[in-house]
Amino acid sequence: MATLKFDEVPYEVVRNGLQRKIIHTDQLMTVLIDFTDGPWDQPEPKHYHPHEQTSYIAAGEIIFFCDGEEPQKLKSGDMFAVPPNVPHTIQLVSEAARLVDSFTPLREDFMK
Amino acid sequence: MATLKFDEVPYEVVRNGLQRKIIHTDQLMTVLIDFTDGPWDQPEPKHYHPHEQTSYIAAGEIIFFCDGEEPQKLKSGDMFAVPPNVPHTIQLVSEAARLVDSFTPLREDFMK
Repeated sequence: MATLKFDEVPYEVVRNGLQRKIIHTDQLMTVLIDFTDGPWDQPEPKHYHPHEQTSYIAAGEIIFFCDGEEPQKLKSGDMFAVPPNVPHTIQLVSEAARLVDSFTPLREDFMK
Repeated sequence: MATLKFDEVPYEVVRNGLQRKIIHTDQLMTVLIDFTDGPWDQPEPKHYHPHEQTSYIAAGEIIFFCDGEEPQKLKSGDMFAVPPNVPHTIQLVSEAARLVDSFTPLREDFMK
């Protein structure tokens, strides 16, 4: 698929309050994630993966936690990057937020 | 750099009407591009590169042209993907637009 038109592609519901839409090439995946269950009292548990990740905050406000770094409050227009296997997580500060996460290689676990 | 705070990092001015901010890991680069010189009468000339690309339209409206596909009008929230070496381009329909382009591997030509 060369294009993903937001209005024409349904969300994949990951859990209540977390829905996503995915586009990818062979080695590059971009995931639009809409969160609607903020604010959160605490961050999600940290996780890590061998994939490199960059993220763009398209809407809302979060705190980004990454091993070896001070927590960073980020808002719409900001970005973060995560090297392979570095534990990281986020905490939603706003009620809703949109993250646009990119990964290489593909998150095969997102394609089941 | 693990985070890029929009308000703290200056744009790189590519040309009049095209400014960008870049974050990357070893093999993954994400480029926030703000266009302000639309609408355009015609698309830019098609170009191609060995890098895989995904793009998120964060603001504005464009037409996406890609060899082998019908032109697609895309707006904020939409995405497109470009395999390696496939000629593609865009035409700005709105006055301003923000694209968030991701590439693997790195666009070394953006880092000079």
